[in-house]
Amino acid sequence: MKTRLYSKIPLAQTIVTLCEAKGIHHIVISPGSRNAPLTIGFSEHPGMHCYSIVDERCAAFFALGIAQQIKKPVALVCTSGSALLNYYPAISEAFYSDIPLVVLSADRPIERIDIGDGQTIRQKNVFENHILYSANLYSEVVAETKIEDDKVRQKQREAQKHNEREINLALNKSIEQKGPVHINVPFYEPLYDKLENPTIVPKNIPVEYPIHHISDGLQAEMLSVWNLAKRKMVLIGVNSPGIIDQKWIRHLADDPSVLVLTETTSNIHHASHINCIDQLITSLTDDEFKALQPDVLLTIGGMVVSKRIKAFLRNYQPQSHWHIDEKKAYDTYFCLTEHIKLHPNVFFSEFLPNTKSNHSDYKSFWISIRDQRRKKHQEYLNKVSFSDLKVFETIFDKIPGGQMIQLSNSSTVRYAQLFSLNPSFKVFCNRGTSGIDGSTSTAIGAAIASKTPTTLITGDLSFFYDSNGLWNEYIPSNFKIIIINNNGGGIFRILPGKEESSNFSTFFETTHDLSAIHLCEMFGFEYHAAHSLEEVVQHIQVMYQNNNLPQLLEIFTPRKENDSTLIDYFK
Amino acid sequence: MKTRLYSKIPLAQTIVTLCEAKGIHHIVISPGSRNAPLTIGFSEHPGMHCYSIVDERCAAFFALGIAQQIKKPVALVCTSGSALLNYYPAISEAFYSDIPLVVLSADRPIERIDIGDGQTIRQKNVFENHILYSANLYSEVVAETKIEDDKVRQKQREAQKHNEREINLALNKSIEQKGPVHINVPFYEPLYDKLENPTIVPKNIPVEYPIHHISDGLQAEMLSVWNLAKRKMVLIGVNSPGIIDQKWIRHLADDPSVLVLTETTSNIHHASHINCIDQLITSLTDDEFKALQPDVLLTIGGMVVSKRIKAFLRNYQPQSHWHIDEKKAYDTYFCLTEHIKLHPNVFFSEFLPNTKSNHSDYKSFWISIRDQRRKKHQEYLNKVSFSDLKVFETIFDKIPGGQMIQLSNSSTVRYAQLFSLNPSFKVFCNRGTSGIDGSTSTAIGAAIASKTPTTLITGDLSFFYDSNGLWNEYIPSNFKIIIINNNGGGIFRILPGKEESSNFSTFFETTHDLSAIHLCEMFGFEYHAAHSLEEVVQHIQVMYQNNNLPQLLEIFTPRKENDSTLIDYFK
Repeated sequence: MKTRLYSKIPLAQTIVTLCEAKGIHHIVISPGSRNAPLTIGFSEHPGMHCYSIVDERCAAFFALGIAQQIKKPVALVCTSGSALLNYYPAISEAFYSDIPLVVLSADRPIERIDIGDGQTIRQKNVFENHILYSANLYSEVVAETKIEDDKVRQKQREAQKHNEREINLALNKSIEQKGPVHINVPFYEPLYDKLENPTIVPKNIPVEYPIHHISDGLQAEMLSVWNLAKRKMVLIGVNSPGIIDQKWIRHLADDPSVLVLTETTSNIHHASHINCIDQLITSLTDDEFKALQPDVLLTIGGMVVSKRIKAFLRNYQPQSHWHIDEKKAYDTYFCLTEHIKLHPNVFFSEFLPNTKSNHSDYKSFWISIRDQRRKKHQEYLNKVSFSDLKVFETIFDKIPGGQMIQLSNSSTVRYAQLFSLNPSFKVFCNRGTSGIDGSTSTAIGAAIASKTPTTLITGDLSFFYDSNGLWNEYIPSNFKIIIINNNGGGIFRILPGKEESSNFSTFFETTHDLSAIHLCEMFGFEYHAAHSLEEVVQHIQVMYQNNNLPQLLEIFTPRKENDSTLIDYFK
Repeated sequence: MKTRLYSKIPLAQTIVTLCEAKGIHHIVISPGSRNAPLTIGFSEHPGMHCYSIVDERCAAFFALGIAQQIKKPVALVCTSGSALLNYYPAISEAFYSDIPLVVLSADRPIERIDIGDGQTIRQKNVFENHILYSANLYSEVVAETKIEDDKVRQKQREAQKHNEREINLALNKSIEQKGPVHINVPFYEPLYDKLENPTIVPKNIPVEYPIHHISDGLQAEMLSVWNLAKRKMVLIGVNSPGIIDQKWIRHLADDPSVLVLTETTSNIHHASHINCIDQLITSLTDDEFKALQPDVLLTIGGMVVSKRIKAFLRNYQPQSHWHIDEKKAYDTYFCLTEHIKLHPNVFFSEFLPNTKSNHSDYKSFWISIRDQRRKKHQEYLNKVSFSDLKVFETIFDKIPGGQMIQLSNSSTVRYAQLFSLNPSFKVFCNRGTSGIDGSTSTAIGAAIASKTPTTLITGDLSFFYDSNGLWNEYIPSNFKIIIINNNGGGIFRILPGKEESSNFSTFFETTHDLSAIHLCEMFGFEYHAAHSLEEVVQHIQVMYQNNNLPQLLEIFTPRKENDSTLIDYFK
């Protein structure tokens, strides 16, 4: 058996050991020299899953995809200089999506910053606006020739103590508060020396999982509001599958005064929920909006995609808005009254058993409206011709059940919201910052970590933006990509004020005539192209039968007709 | 003739007008909705060259390439959210390379930050570590219905005054100090409204160009040191072609006590300079190093590539180190004595005419060593077989004169330093942060702005990293790319401590078997492949005759032999 080796540098040993102690086992490494001590330490560790990704922007989104699934921190390792700045888009996504990531950036010792050395920038606190914690470590105190000198040894001990504390703080913060942290790690040369036995045993400060309860006073106050209210709306944003106990979903669904609105990314399904919010609330009259206006709004989950529900709740505010989340609450509707810092299951188990069902036709009325709208939706869909809208209907219908569905921003996720998706789908989308920048890399990371058959559905701009996402040795052979290629940013065609001019098509729609076929050849995907609904159906069937090679289906839709189909839909 | 239109939003008008007033005419726009007022304003202006680039990372390096050539700020326009974080790698490069860039990031109004709206992050001061100035503008005060209200009008005037002052400060700083600035621009909806006549005439605060002179006292002091010194070394780092007057180059070259060392990126050429620093100083004995140690070191230009010259000057420090630069001086050798804040031509014109030539064999001795080394270099090159080193010799020999040569990091620029390049080449490399991340985009921007026939010479990792750089409608038809594809990061093979293991090839060398042929098909480049020196020579000849289509030559070199060829070279 091969002997496990350790970096000779104690700081590198400390980081690897503490990551292991806290259950961090996925490490995404980008090539470099300054980070060699960490690369050696992690890649030599038999318990670590190390991935090598060259483009740091992709590496970070790939790590985000893994962490999105395993719900534990994933570590990123890069060299010094501009390398780590390429992490920033994914870090901001992790920050707003509450996904734990640990950035380990190698650095030169502090006295080598801003003196003209290569690959050297001001790494300290560089992600300050979007990070839970920035740990700035000390270099080892180098004293080869005077190792007996007491003062040097004292300094070494102090540096080690500082570093252990900072690493513990950062890693614990990432776990406890679910988000990105940055640990900046300066190393002296030599960087490649190895040892057969570690020279340091760092202290692990345990993670603290706070236990919260709702206070009796608050509970009584909330109960009195809830039990009196005839119109209670529950709105669920981004939420991983299986997070909320079915029991509480059913409890809410059974109450005639409670209307539950679920977004596509909520992964919550029940027959008496409103699962296509925009379908319901588009073109309501003022009187109807007033009838929909809740007395109490209870929100759970992360970001909400629907702009229409945000506009509605801002214009027709509830008297009480309670947000249930262990970490944070945004005042999205400018009327937040309580942030209950509890896991939704904990809150529901303490609160719902004490509530009383209230006589109300709030739910039944809106469910009947929902059913009318669903009928109209289907009538419209049955008559529209080949277009983005029709394509989305078809692919959601034809993709086999049980898939993880990764959606890119932003047309794709907005179209998905218009359909009742198969409840066996697990749906994810980077809605923290809603960027178009890393959907492919995220989907690949998620597919690997979840071991679930995964389909990425993406627009053309988002796909080509992250084309380096395919430069990845770890893509599962059953991974599928479906691109809706409308030759540009079709979403801009729907906006008010657009006009058919060359300025519009160049700077807003950004038309192009690229195809994914060449990238498929480059990166070993089997390629399928569809130009009609029949071809879509046919290729989907073929590609879900072939799991020996990643498959990509590119659907070319008519650029100039997609927007009118959608605008007419909302009429 | 088409009527020019203006954004209805006064803030957008103000920015376009002030950019125009300060001579900013190149605008790189990435698609988005929040930035519509700026996109409309710039793209409707007949005097603005607007470019549409989807991937903001590429957009920023593309803008950097333009600014590198025109030496005036180039503006970047993007939407809100993670979009602008993709600019950061290029911003840090501009910061350390003293290249003027103006980032105009659209934003939501401040009260919409961190409340759960889409594409919304904390943009304020987000580039703080690497920016000359961050201007955080105020949104318009919206008061459609109460436009007559005096208080609202007063607030509007104050916001406009603040914004005008901040925009002026930022733009002037970018011009005066040559570097990146960030202007964050919040906009309320509606974003697409246009007017036929502008509603605002902002005040232009003029740029200040300070005039400096060297004081008589300092001049006298420096002259006494200089005139007594027998060994004066002049070291020239990154420097654009034509910056330093030939007169002063000749003056320095004529002094027997002055040894001029020029890097490949210095664009300075003279028969009695040392133009291959590493060739000269490798394997010198301690006595030889002492003989080379200067009394006075005078440095001009930007970053220095050669690690060996840095190590030498840190170990054998001069008594005086003077750096001549209008903006900044790094203490690269830990012995900086004077930072003369003057343009080198101004300094030389005030200083050199007053110096006296000193009897010394410093120059002649080292020129004779140089000539011996050159002979050995040629003898070695004549006998080595096909390898990176031999390929670089051949391509530098065969590329026609007069080309702009853009080099990627980091093997490419290091190899280039070993050869005496054709003095008619104009040589550039992103040495501010020495990243591998944007060489292709930079080269394309530079080619467009300079209108000079341009060749990018790049390694495979750097090329594939910036593959989206080719997603660009503006690539000149005479643009050439030469890739030295050694199937991975060949530079890591030269490092101490490497070993032939799978961890090494995966996480350091990052081996792959990608080829650029598919990207050529995707983006309309004519593709050439070479596997031998004969094929290299033959394809170079063909590709420089064809200027109707961008050309790419991919040279496949033997991965496992390149490093030993180079290591033997230095022996």
